[in-house]
Amino acid sequence: MATETDCIFCKIIAGEIPSTKVAEDDSTYVFMDINPATRGHALVIPKRHTQDITTIDPADLAAVTVKAQEIAKRAKEVFAADGVNLLNCCGSAAWQTVFHFHLHVIPRYVDDGLIEPWKPGQGGDADVIAAAGAALRG
Amino acid sequence: MATETDCIFCKIIAGEIPSTKVAEDDSTYVFMDINPATRGHALVIPKRHTQDITTIDPADLAAVTVKAQEIAKRAKEVFAADGVNLLNCCGSAAWQTVFHFHLHVIPRYVDDGLIEPWKPGQGGDADVIAAAGAALRG
Repeated sequence: MATETDCIFCKIIAGEIPSTKVAEDDSTYVFMDINPATRGHALVIPKRHTQDITTIDPADLAAVTVKAQEIAKRAKEVFAADGVNLLNCCGSAAWQTVFHFHLHVIPRYVDDGLIEPWKPGQGGDADVIAAAGAALRG
Repeated sequence: MATETDCIFCKIIAGEIPSTKVAEDDSTYVFMDINPATRGHALVIPKRHTQDITTIDPADLAAVTVKAQEIAKRAKEVFAADGVNLLNCCGSAAWQTVFHFHLHVIPRYVDDGLIEPWKPGQGGDADVIAAAGAALRG
């Protein structure tokens, strides 16, 4: 399994740094975030080191996401959570702080204090949106 | 393909409501968010109607996520974005407003004004985290 010498998550997978492990299989590892946003906040990571969404092998990404679904369902059940967010951050500008791909599974509770990162419903400029869509389509 | 009569995203897929389509394949549909958080904000959805992460078929979830990866990579390239977030919201308490599973692909730019939903780094109570981990493990 590809690991990176100075990667804290690779060290967690290898057991060189302790973690509160939740689950593990051939390609994924699940453990509790040590700075939880809410009660039950877990991280799902691929065992194979990779930096972010732009570099992760699609098969590993699928495995991580399906594992995150299991964790999300279980979190809703065991914590009686009112909802759940999955969040992935790629790049410092997107709040990534550990550069080993990870998917946050964050159980949500009414009045849990998390802040909506943007306010939907203001309506975007239709021409700008159309141009962005055309750029993405290529 | 299972659709829901009153679902706005099912109507978008069916072409009954217009959208700025970016991509489409057998199981997924990609279009621009009409209330973008940032330039290039797109949504990836399964064609088969399903409410959220607790109900989506794992194969559809994998397809949606791998498609989102493609869009994220392309967005970073065409918009010269500094990062990207993937976000899924399940339940009103987690900011879900349309109850057809969708994965936000949000290109990020330095100083784009999005607000970090929580402040990591405060450190959680180790006993509380251990107990939550034990509950998730079952």
